[in-house]
Amino acid sequence: MKNADFLTGITTSGTPHLGNFVGAIRPAVATSKNPDLTSYYFLADYHSLIKNHDPEKRQQSTLEIAAAWIALGLDHDNCVFYRQSDIPEIPELTWILTCLTAKGLMNRAHAYKAKVQENDADGKKDPDQAITMGLFSYPILMAADILMFNAGKVPVGKDQIQHLEMTRDIAARFNHVYENLFVLPEVVVDDNTAVLSGLDGRKMSKSYNNFIPLFDTEKKLRKMIMKIQTNSLGPDEPKDPDTCTLFSIYRAFATESETCAMADRYREGIAWGVMKQELFEYINAILAEPRQRYNELIKNPTDIEEILAKGAEKARAFSVPFLQKIRSAIGIRSLG
Amino acid sequence: MKNADFLTGITTSGTPHLGNFVGAIRPAVATSKNPDLTSYYFLADYHSLIKNHDPEKRQQSTLEIAAAWIALGLDHDNCVFYRQSDIPEIPELTWILTCLTAKGLMNRAHAYKAKVQENDADGKKDPDQAITMGLFSYPILMAADILMFNAGKVPVGKDQIQHLEMTRDIAARFNHVYENLFVLPEVVVDDNTAVLSGLDGRKMSKSYNNFIPLFDTEKKLRKMIMKIQTNSLGPDEPKDPDTCTLFSIYRAFATESETCAMADRYREGIAWGVMKQELFEYINAILAEPRQRYNELIKNPTDIEEILAKGAEKARAFSVPFLQKIRSAIGIRSLG
Repeated sequence: MKNADFLTGITTSGTPHLGNFVGAIRPAVATSKNPDLTSYYFLADYHSLIKNHDPEKRQQSTLEIAAAWIALGLDHDNCVFYRQSDIPEIPELTWILTCLTAKGLMNRAHAYKAKVQENDADGKKDPDQAITMGLFSYPILMAADILMFNAGKVPVGKDQIQHLEMTRDIAARFNHVYENLFVLPEVVVDDNTAVLSGLDGRKMSKSYNNFIPLFDTEKKLRKMIMKIQTNSLGPDEPKDPDTCTLFSIYRAFATESETCAMADRYREGIAWGVMKQELFEYINAILAEPRQRYNELIKNPTDIEEILAKGAEKARAFSVPFLQKIRSAIGIRSLG
Repeated sequence: MKNADFLTGITTSGTPHLGNFVGAIRPAVATSKNPDLTSYYFLADYHSLIKNHDPEKRQQSTLEIAAAWIALGLDHDNCVFYRQSDIPEIPELTWILTCLTAKGLMNRAHAYKAKVQENDADGKKDPDQAITMGLFSYPILMAADILMFNAGKVPVGKDQIQHLEMTRDIAARFNHVYENLFVLPEVVVDDNTAVLSGLDGRKMSKSYNNFIPLFDTEKKLRKMIMKIQTNSLGPDEPKDPDTCTLFSIYRAFATESETCAMADRYREGIAWGVMKQELFEYINAILAEPRQRYNELIKNPTDIEEILAKGAEKARAFSVPFLQKIRSAIGIRSLG
């Protein structure tokens, strides 16, 4: 197996929504089909242990998210699609890297510092109140996720840039102390990553609870779209597409010429009811087939399990011999 | 395989010395032979990654220490004798426990606090200067070592009591959050654990560099014993056994009646040269056979590897199905 040209982790919490599709799944599906690239995509269930302590939710979310990615066309034959917890080499590498990571590096992690500030603002005596070692040290697990497959490029949002820098730090430390085994991964920040607006106009997000699930029924999808907030302009009044949530969602799915045509109709004065119905129809046309596949998959979880098992096999074809090399470099070797 | 009635980790750093024999190996060898107990002994090489960054030294030390324990009579057929790094379930459990461990708990660990104080005393600006995440979080690895085999009792020195309390804390947290899977291990502090004096009269220890290696040649053993510091009393003058390093070492090996007889000879006035020669002969008689076995083993590391492989097989007969249970409890399950 080849190392990862691209590597992306997928958080296994919650139910996949339209924002996930536009921001993460759609571009990943496109990359997964590229025959010239070896892309790795993994369900990050070890990460989900940090915040989520509900075993049923974890399993359900893993099922739904795997089904969603497959239903939306991830080319799992061409790429490497696996569940993090199927790769026992990852936690082992995590410990190896833990022994090389300065505590000071973790002290400076944004997510940890934000939590400390929160405690401070809440007047908590202990700045580390309710902070687990999982939250504190997860940049090391992330480094192991990436370095285990010597990923060349890691597409991330802006909030993740620091983690990539930490990964490079840790990799460089290993290369210096032991042996030059790790590629320093390049961060790829896509400023153009589509951010979808939610029901209330803010970024669509699980935490705002303003999201539209990807694979509810057609009826529910319509109902959700009808709920999107608009202003009170009358049916014939000209409208500004640039400040309209409906338009921004439409644009995230439509072609450029369709988008321009719709902008014209806004200026001419399209009724909100009409726009909502058209938006629903547009999105529903895109989702109808994947929805059917998704429902099939959810009914047949063994099919998903099989796909993930094949992915793990491909991933381990890289990680097992590579960890062997790493172990040898650090002096954990057969004595014989 | 049964869970561990007793579990002991063996640090794989440095060369085994007489102090290790008396303090750790001899009592463990006795326990290992008890047919009514399932004792686990492991070479803690994941732990050695924290301080030792020299791969050759790690391998050499693992070889020497494994050979020493076997040569000194560890009953590896009756007990479970394995290398920590042969059990990939341990680092996986480490991550699972990491997500349940409060950072505050690690902040209070003695070893970490001592290092911070040292930095403070040295006028370092950063209290975490030169502290790695390995040092900071190794109580979690230790918890995983113990909980992986649901160890009932863990014999420790006084400095390790806190770690056992942390292990119990972490286990209780898991049992509360997920499912009652872990036994809370009992700490066994043996106040009578023989502490051997070193060449200079202080506790024999690698860090003081005052130790007598277990398996140097007979000639070197004699030379080391001749180096032990004594006072300047003449050959016939009465001597105080209770303040004498030679005597304290003798006592650690001799029977009670032999010890009393020797005390009498002290009071009568034994010459230092005579005492040293007798001490050498006494210890050499004990070590002669094991020394031969040790040298054989060092020459045939594949024999050691085979013993460790069998031990790992026995240990994994417990850890593999137990980790499966743990994974199921936290919601990392097959989807099919």
